[in-house]
Amino acid sequence: MKDSEGSGIPVFQLARAVGGEVEGDPERLVFRGAPFDHADETAVTFAETPALLKKLPDCRAGAVVVPESFEPSFGGKTLPARIRHEKPRLAFAKIMAMFHPRKRPFAGISPEAGIGRGVSIGSETVVGSAAYIGNRAVLGERVVIYPGAFVGDDVSIGDDTEIMPNVTVMDGCIIGRRVIIHAGTVIGSDGFGFTPEGETHCKIPQTGIVEIGDDAEIGACNTIDRATFGSTRIGCGVKTDNMVHIAHNVSVGDHSLIVAQAGIAGSVRIGSRVTIAGQAGIAGHLVIGDGAVIGPRAGVVRNVDSGRVVSGTPDMDHRQWLRVQRAIPRLPGLAKQVQEMERRLRSLEQAAGKTGDSESDW
Amino acid sequence: MKDSEGSGIPVFQLARAVGGEVEGDPERLVFRGAPFDHADETAVTFAETPALLKKLPDCRAGAVVVPESFEPSFGGKTLPARIRHEKPRLAFAKIMAMFHPRKRPFAGISPEAGIGRGVSIGSETVVGSAAYIGNRAVLGERVVIYPGAFVGDDVSIGDDTEIMPNVTVMDGCIIGRRVIIHAGTVIGSDGFGFTPEGETHCKIPQTGIVEIGDDAEIGACNTIDRATFGSTRIGCGVKTDNMVHIAHNVSVGDHSLIVAQAGIAGSVRIGSRVTIAGQAGIAGHLVIGDGAVIGPRAGVVRNVDSGRVVSGTPDMDHRQWLRVQRAIPRLPGLAKQVQEMERRLRSLEQAAGKTGDSESDW
Amino acid sequence: MKDSEGSGIPVFQLARAVGGEVEGDPERLVFRGAPFDHADETAVTFAETPALLKKLPDCRAGAVVVPESFEPSFGGKTLPARIRHEKPRLAFAKIMAMFHPRKRPFAGISPEAGIGRGVSIGSETVVGSAAYIGNRAVLGERVVIYPGAFVGDDVSIGDDTEIMPNVTVMDGCIIGRRVIIHAGTVIGSDGFGFTPEGETHCKIPQTGIVEIGDDAEIGACNTIDRATFGSTRIGCGVKTDNMVHIAHNVSVGDHSLIVAQAGIAGSVRIGSRVTIAGQAGIAGHLVIGDGAVIGPRAGVVRNVDSGRVVSGTPDMDHRQWLRVQRAIPRLPGLAKQVQEMERRLRSLEQAAGKTGDSESDW
Repeated sequence: MKDSEGSGIPVFQLARAVGGEVEGDPERLVFRGAPFDHADETAVTFAETPALLKKLPDCRAGAVVVPESFEPSFGGKTLPARIRHEKPRLAFAKIMAMFHPRKRPFAGISPEAGIGRGVSIGSETVVGSAAYIGNRAVLGERVVIYPGAFVGDDVSIGDDTEIMPNVTVMDGCIIGRRVIIHAGTVIGSDGFGFTPEGETHCKIPQTGIVEIGDDAEIGACNTIDRATFGSTRIGCGVKTDNMVHIAHNVSVGDHSLIVAQAGIAGSVRIGSRVTIAGQAGIAGHLVIGDGAVIGPRAGVVRNVDSGRVVSGTPDMDHRQWLRVQRAIPRLPGLAKQVQEMERRLRSLEQAAGKTGDSESDW
Repeated sequence: MKDSEGSGIPVFQLARAVGGEVEGDPERLVFRGAPFDHADETAVTFAETPALLKKLPDCRAGAVVVPESFEPSFGGKTLPARIRHEKPRLAFAKIMAMFHPRKRPFAGISPEAGIGRGVSIGSETVVGSAAYIGNRAVLGERVVIYPGAFVGDDVSIGDDTEIMPNVTVMDGCIIGRRVIIHAGTVIGSDGFGFTPEGETHCKIPQTGIVEIGDDAEIGACNTIDRATFGSTRIGCGVKTDNMVHIAHNVSVGDHSLIVAQAGIAGSVRIGSRVTIAGQAGIAGHLVIGDGAVIGPRAGVVRNVDSGRVVSGTPDMDHRQWLRVQRAIPRLPGLAKQVQEMERRLRSLEQAAGKTGDSESDW
Repeated sequence: MKDSEGSGIPVFQLARAVGGEVEGDPERLVFRGAPFDHADETAVTFAETPALLKKLPDCRAGAVVVPESFEPSFGGKTLPARIRHEKPRLAFAKIMAMFHPRKRPFAGISPEAGIGRGVSIGSETVVGSAAYIGNRAVLGERVVIYPGAFVGDDVSIGDDTEIMPNVTVMDGCIIGRRVIIHAGTVIGSDGFGFTPEGETHCKIPQTGIVEIGDDAEIGACNTIDRATFGSTRIGCGVKTDNMVHIAHNVSVGDHSLIVAQAGIAGSVRIGSRVTIAGQAGIAGHLVIGDGAVIGPRAGVVRNVDSGRVVSGTPDMDHRQWLRVQRAIPRLPGLAKQVQEMERRLRSLEQAAGKTGDSESDW
């Protein structure tokens, strides 16, 4: 971080890099990105909402990314330099990345790393101290293996991938290019597979692997189990948050998002561009269609069709869940009301010479 | 994996090892296990269900484990060699293990490992680079300590146990024989014990240990806390999935199963052969009887008798939970119906000269 | 542990250290703390409840911490030495700490540790083998860095802090004094921040840090993400249990407690002395007031005022949740009763010449 703050970038260069258009001083130098309210003249920020855009004359930033369609109407007031862009937040993310390029935390292969036999290591790849690279592992170019990471036998890791500290990638797993695996995560642990043997459990050897596609980012302290046979598959561009558990034989389609502490049981098939919110759970062998959205803490026990939005336990249409959520706290009152109505009904029935016969197990 | 595929095993030898009976060519060599639909002539598979058994003539496997009672009736069609066994899945698991014997990932004690004073290391035990073995630790025979694992002072580890990469076993813990502890797991961290001191919290020193019985298998990224006094106990043959949390002073009886992301609060006593499904939680100090089953995502707040099957939050009889699960999404409709009935009831009462008096807090 | 058991401490010295008053033999030597029922004459214990105090003549402990107001009335029976104290449990915790002082598991800086450029290391600080200390990191005095821990570039760690094995502290994070970070925990991983780019997700660089206040204790296998900008803040004296997830930009006020497997989504602001029970989840951007209590497994979707106690999903007043919890298992019975009442109501209406019109979607 410190290192990158030395050199400023002129606004026109930022605009060109993200495909935006400059208004104001194109030579203005900025040194970092910052949130709208905290940006000073050395920083670039972005404004996307009408509320923020209205505050533009008060913004002290050196430059602001604004919507393409934005036409300032502040009279003669001085405004920061603007970069007009169709998607200001996206442009700002890319500008941030220019100020924070992938770091190379150290150089070369640490003499304290453990390196197995027959390892292939691409150019500019670095391996930290206390890391371990197993036999016949193949590391692509510009790979970063942080200290304390374990890379098992026959693992393959694509170009430009970063394996953070204390990550474990067990034998035979295949990791794509430009992947980030955050600290503490375990890839390729054995799936939870046993079969009864009398009163004990006999282990079913887990002989498959995990495959992770290009551009995936796996959060900290995830566990992704190897398949019993074949592969547990994480698609290209998948992003997982922290503490996500993915069991054996699961497949996750390209560009899906899985938020923290969600758990996916064995053999679930998740489509592309699915969103699974935090602390949700998906029962084994289900199919979640492309573009489906699973709400926070949902407990999914049925297949979910493409594009559906489900929430709750058990899973239901999200709008239905919103109604259920309002109804649950009122359930005791409802029950009381029903008992009172029961009494009144009985009284009417007696008056009419009938006998009530509801059986309440309340 | 690669290494084991070199040598085939004749079918008669597999059958003898698992106690099965051969039909067809006993000398047939097979080189691996595979699922029914993917097995080719070099592979052995198994078929247990009528549906699969019916497809036997189309199966390309070199050999198939079938039920003892299975009598093929496919006319003159050629069938793969068969191994008849009372429990085909169990026999197949054992055959798989023959093709995938426990791996010795490296030899000897790595010169890059940190070894404390007074350590005792049994014959054929291996310790990887960047592993640490604390003072007075005792490692049995044929133990495998993977790179990056930490074994604290006075820890004892039984014969044939495997400690996977980046596992932490803190001081004084006792690990049995033939145990597997998967990557990233922490055994013997301090229990969560504090007592109020004004507006702050005073730590209660956690001075006990964790004991893990023979043949247990602990999943990846588990946390099992040491007892305040005495031991947190994990019985023989217990199997835990990934991200299971077991708090201080818990005991888990022999051969129980705990599925991913379940959490067991302090001092819970779990019997033998209990099953706790994924994402379930058990409140502190409860007793779960032998053979009980706790459903997925259940929130258990009461003791559970031996052999009971409970689900839901709060925990209830599993069959009741199935009914509740169906009822929950319909709750808003029920509430609406009750309000409508309230109106009709009032109308009847008015006609009868009575006054309705239910109080609805809906 | 073993080491500390050699030297006994006289009762008067324990009493003086905790500010208590001795009755009985002040020179009595005790060697350890123990639970009431397991304490022998070499151990000190405590008794706080009337039930335990009544059993005092049968207690074999060498000394017992009792309430200040306790007046023994057991006739001539011999009692163990007593330390009278306003808060026996607290006094006992402090006595336990005297028998279990912070351990220095090894001395000096291991030659097998990886040490970056420009590192500053305070006096009596120790760094274990296979640990890594990044460039320009600052370690205070008497810091303990266990084997396998990773401390990133520009990290600052205060005096007397302990970083347990296989912990990861990423670049730039600031850890206070007397902090304990238990094994496997990840501090300063990237927050889960992406913005759509067509059908893919563009990473928003996470450029902030994590700051942890003095006297905090972070459990095993926690994940605390760095802020997008600025800091994710963990206050002084905060205690987290195992597997707690804290997302980017969260702030946790001083002396709050967070129990195992709870998850806090991004930008949540948690006040001081808040308690968040196990497996609870708090949705993003909420504010939890000082002293609030969040029940076990609660799913909080609204702000919680200071001092409130909420439970359930969705969150509700805890007493209301107790009623709801009783009502949920009875919901199917209630639904059945309502359908039966519907039938009876219709029958009364027909008798009265009216037509029922409830619409049931049951």
